[in-house]
Amino acid sequence: MNKTLMTDFYELTMAQTYFNNGKQDEEVVFDVFFRKNPFEGGYTVSAGLDNIIDYINNFKFGTEEINYLRSLGMFSEEFLNYLSNLKFTGSMWAIPDGTVVFPNEPIITVKAKVIEAQLIETALLANFNYASLVTTSTRRIINETKGIPVMEFGARRARGIDAAIEASKYAIIGGCASTSNTYAGMKYGLPVSGTMAHSLVTESESEYKAFLNYAKSNPENTVFLVDTYDTLRSGIPNAIRVAKDYLIPNGYKFKGIRIDSGDLAYLSKQARIMLDEAGFTDTAICVSNGLNEFTIKSILEEGAKINSIGLGDNITASKERIGGVYKLVGVVKNEVVEPRIKVSEDVIKTINPGFKVPYRFYDKETGYALGDVIALYDEEIEKDGYTLINEYHPEKRKVITNYIVRKLQVPVFEEGKQVYQIPSIMERKEYSAKEMETIYPEVKRLLNPHLYYVDLSKKLLELKRELILEHKKEANEAVRN
Amino acid sequence: MNKTLMTDFYELTMAQTYFNNGKQDEEVVFDVFFRKNPFEGGYTVSAGLDNIIDYINNFKFGTEEINYLRSLGMFSEEFLNYLSNLKFTGSMWAIPDGTVVFPNEPIITVKAKVIEAQLIETALLANFNYASLVTTSTRRIINETKGIPVMEFGARRARGIDAAIEASKYAIIGGCASTSNTYAGMKYGLPVSGTMAHSLVTESESEYKAFLNYAKSNPENTVFLVDTYDTLRSGIPNAIRVAKDYLIPNGYKFKGIRIDSGDLAYLSKQARIMLDEAGFTDTAICVSNGLNEFTIKSILEEGAKINSIGLGDNITASKERIGGVYKLVGVVKNEVVEPRIKVSEDVIKTINPGFKVPYRFYDKETGYALGDVIALYDEEIEKDGYTLINEYHPEKRKVITNYIVRKLQVPVFEEGKQVYQIPSIMERKEYSAKEMETIYPEVKRLLNPHLYYVDLSKKLLELKRELILEHKKEANEAVRN
Repeated sequence: MNKTLMTDFYELTMAQTYFNNGKQDEEVVFDVFFRKNPFEGGYTVSAGLDNIIDYINNFKFGTEEINYLRSLGMFSEEFLNYLSNLKFTGSMWAIPDGTVVFPNEPIITVKAKVIEAQLIETALLANFNYASLVTTSTRRIINETKGIPVMEFGARRARGIDAAIEASKYAIIGGCASTSNTYAGMKYGLPVSGTMAHSLVTESESEYKAFLNYAKSNPENTVFLVDTYDTLRSGIPNAIRVAKDYLIPNGYKFKGIRIDSGDLAYLSKQARIMLDEAGFTDTAICVSNGLNEFTIKSILEEGAKINSIGLGDNITASKERIGGVYKLVGVVKNEVVEPRIKVSEDVIKTINPGFKVPYRFYDKETGYALGDVIALYDEEIEKDGYTLINEYHPEKRKVITNYIVRKLQVPVFEEGKQVYQIPSIMERKEYSAKEMETIYPEVKRLLNPHLYYVDLSKKLLELKRELILEHKKEANEAVRN
Repeated sequence: MNKTLMTDFYELTMAQTYFNNGKQDEEVVFDVFFRKNPFEGGYTVSAGLDNIIDYINNFKFGTEEINYLRSLGMFSEEFLNYLSNLKFTGSMWAIPDGTVVFPNEPIITVKAKVIEAQLIETALLANFNYASLVTTSTRRIINETKGIPVMEFGARRARGIDAAIEASKYAIIGGCASTSNTYAGMKYGLPVSGTMAHSLVTESESEYKAFLNYAKSNPENTVFLVDTYDTLRSGIPNAIRVAKDYLIPNGYKFKGIRIDSGDLAYLSKQARIMLDEAGFTDTAICVSNGLNEFTIKSILEEGAKINSIGLGDNITASKERIGGVYKLVGVVKNEVVEPRIKVSEDVIKTINPGFKVPYRFYDKETGYALGDVIALYDEEIEKDGYTLINEYHPEKRKVITNYIVRKLQVPVFEEGKQVYQIPSIMERKEYSAKEMETIYPEVKRLLNPHLYYVDLSKKLLELKRELILEHKKEANEAVRN
């Protein structure tokens, strides 16, 4: 299925404009970045590069697409003919999936012919925005579970079937231990998990019988859902009875119970006592029911006895969004990238101009990330003694020393050729977990996190101010004309 | 692409349990319903049936699926063999897409063999939840625009590429005039729209030149984006210049301008004055920039001069969710549906038992919907003089008269055969708009809407109370044993 046309219609009318003006070979530079961490949080975890690479590799206007565009009566045959031969021949750099990223830094930089760069915008953003949202939502939760594994159960609440499948993958990258989504398990080789729903109990003549029948059919996977009627008075006693009547006599383990409603802190503590008293000290307690990072933190502080967590909505149907944008930052003239800017009355919406590279400075001793700097592509970064300058309060400066500096982006496409191999899902998961360890706890705090420094290099800062003033001048002249 | 495995893993372990207990031919009844309108609103607009029907028609475990399940080492060959021959042979009733629906009413009712009914759960919910969310989000916005057309621009903020395509369709059903998603336009035959982004302007040597080049290449589609540098001092003057220099002399129309930042109420009023003074009284003003139903209502109250609205995030990446659930409500024993219940400490989570039918009562004079009643499938509804009984305050009663009563669900599948033809997208759009007209303005109010009545029939209410008491008794006995 060719999804090349998954592009906003204006990309095509603009492309026709560039084409008619003979600009089809003009190279430009675009950045993908976002302006705000989701959840009023201190960080974002980037993802989506896998699907972006697929989109670009499959980017091709076939006969169906060209015929459809022709049917709209808005495009010339010359332009349609040009499109039918178009492929992506540009270059792309990106911060790898699973990296902790921050507002305003270029996550993906595209340097390509203007029409190619323009047409891929929508797919780049849709993939980046969604994937990063799921990965970030998951990571915020994982950071609060104190190592208790989280199973992703959210397919039914996801944004349709296809979004569910992608969410399962990004939830794993974000730190989940398994998914309930069997299709995603098959497609991506993810660990799948799940045992029973309330319907198994309500269908049955009794809760005891439901558990017993389930145990006989799935003896290696015995996690009983105990809250259909009454968790403490019916569910747990019945689960224990089945364990004693059937599992233990037949050499099977009583793996666990799941509580899906009620006060999970209280019920899990009571459940632990009941299971321990019955001799099932190894039987795990799983909880679920609309949990999020805040409720998890809170019930764990209350001493909830939990061995695993099932989580759906707040991973696959997070009530947030990441507003990644794709902005033109430069036009290549005589082989040099001429910086471009979009100013805005809203200062924060004025973009950072030019062909740029984001760097991260790590403390050589502790390994913690000290701050990021966005520099122009041809700048040299000092090996020691770098001065961080606050963009809006340039008198606020800080000299950092004894650091290791890392270029955050890697080359992904070079002149149309993919030069980056996406690591496996499990590799990305592991990488992302390690990434989190480099971030100060203050930045990861749920409420009022510390603002991580993302500064502009002195050179970039000066360039930005220059361009803003230039445009103010032009606007004034436009009025006078 | 076979998506049959888009099912939560526990559906399969439960299915194996039913199979091993010889229950594969046992029929059950499940309901899809939700407990809360999104956005603290007064209503929801149902959708997703199209994709649900597709899923069920394509439901088939092929070789790849069976091999994958076998590889997990948890399923018997007998069960896998059973799955490989499985198709959906049950019946399904559903409230048509585009209908205004309310919490707790059965949107979809499935009567099928227990394994079939169980396995389709995840896909039913993922489709219903997402589609209804987009349709409802859109409708809430459309209800506030006073007839000003809304263009859906949200592909880049959607939950990945595939969710974007579906969102475009449901946005049209919810009332949008067009979409920017070209793929969705091609796939579903939707009107597409769009003109230019800021990059067209920043790429160019000047704003004037960008507009001029655009006009020459797309002379029939001239909506200029005027806020790249300065809306009033640069953008609008340049658009007017291009209209005077090129469009008018060459016999083309100056169709419009789009303002994408700043105070849209103020800027649109100023823009109207500037355009009118320049003689372009027919030139349209389009606004965009993260608008939602509240900001639209507010800027229109402030007298904003707007001819069309572009809207993305709040349609395709709405910060809400619909939490549709799928609950077993009955088991067929000796050809009679025996009602089942799931009780909960949280009263509102106790489900309505039994095989049910939702009805809507309309005022014969005004056409307004007076209230809904959920009744058991074999109840007769009085032709006149129906007593509505409040479930939690049964002393609160209201006798309604002079009504027309409508069965909300239609048959969709009968014994595995599809018996319902989904209306076209435009038919569903029109139907949904008419549906909205039957809802009292008080129910559509954005803040603190009037609670629409959804009551249980007297018979259902009595059944529910009986079953709750019965389960309380059982739980007590379980403790004593």
